[in-house]
Amino acid sequence: MAHSAGTSVHLIADIADASGLDDLPLIEATLREAAKAARVRVLDVRLHHFGAGMGVTGVALLAESHISIHTWPEDGLAAVDLFVCGETADPEAGLETIRQRLRGTVRERHTIRRLRVSGATPFP
Amino acid sequence: MAHSAGTSVHLIADIADASGLDDLPLIEATLREAAKAARVRVLDVRLHHFGAGMGVTGVALLAESHISIHTWPEDGLAAVDLFVCGETADPEAGLETIRQRLRGTVRERHTIRRLRVSGATPFP
Repeated sequence: MAHSAGTSVHLIADIADASGLDDLPLIEATLREAAKAARVRVLDVRLHHFGAGMGVTGVALLAESHISIHTWPEDGLAAVDLFVCGETADPEAGLETIRQRLRGTVRERHTIRRLRVSGATPFP
Repeated sequence: MAHSAGTSVHLIADIADASGLDDLPLIEATLREAAKAARVRVLDVRLHHFGAGMGVTGVALLAESHISIHTWPEDGLAAVDLFVCGETADPEAGLETIRQRLRGTVRERHTIRRLRVSGATPFP
């Protein structure tokens, strides 16, 4: 990875009452804007649409790990995770961008400190 | 998504003392074998190698969500997450496949039930 393991945060959230969940270009734009807000660098974005009116899977591969989104338009739900490394990354800002873009409510969230190694090199 | 939101599990684990972490073909094979063990269907696999001797990011997009892996060969660490939907999916078996392939130890893990919606359609 481009950044030390010692500063890794995994932010996991479900977003309810969301809209635009079957809109592939919107989901791609949302991932890219979330990465910008989180101050991380996108290497690649991959998307898959399960069919007209159905959900979307989107993953942004980052220099600092990944952001993913999976959507269920029929339930108004999106499952999001932002896994970022590096002291300057701001996953909360990324999540807030996604919530705003999808006009939903964050219903459940978990913040997990990943890879808490005694031997890990501190960032930078 | 191809499966209901009502049966979603997100299994998160750090693997320590692991090997093969800078081996791109091994990481790709590991993702594909983990998906098979977890009884989920791979739509696409994306990989990024940060350079010779450095870490790898790999994400498998699934019909049932995703599996990701990020590695730090310098620390012997891999960060894994398996997000799967559907009653037949077995994320534990997927994680065990990854652990065996990387010959490491699962050090920290979290199992998160995602998208617990009262209105969600039960699977199948």
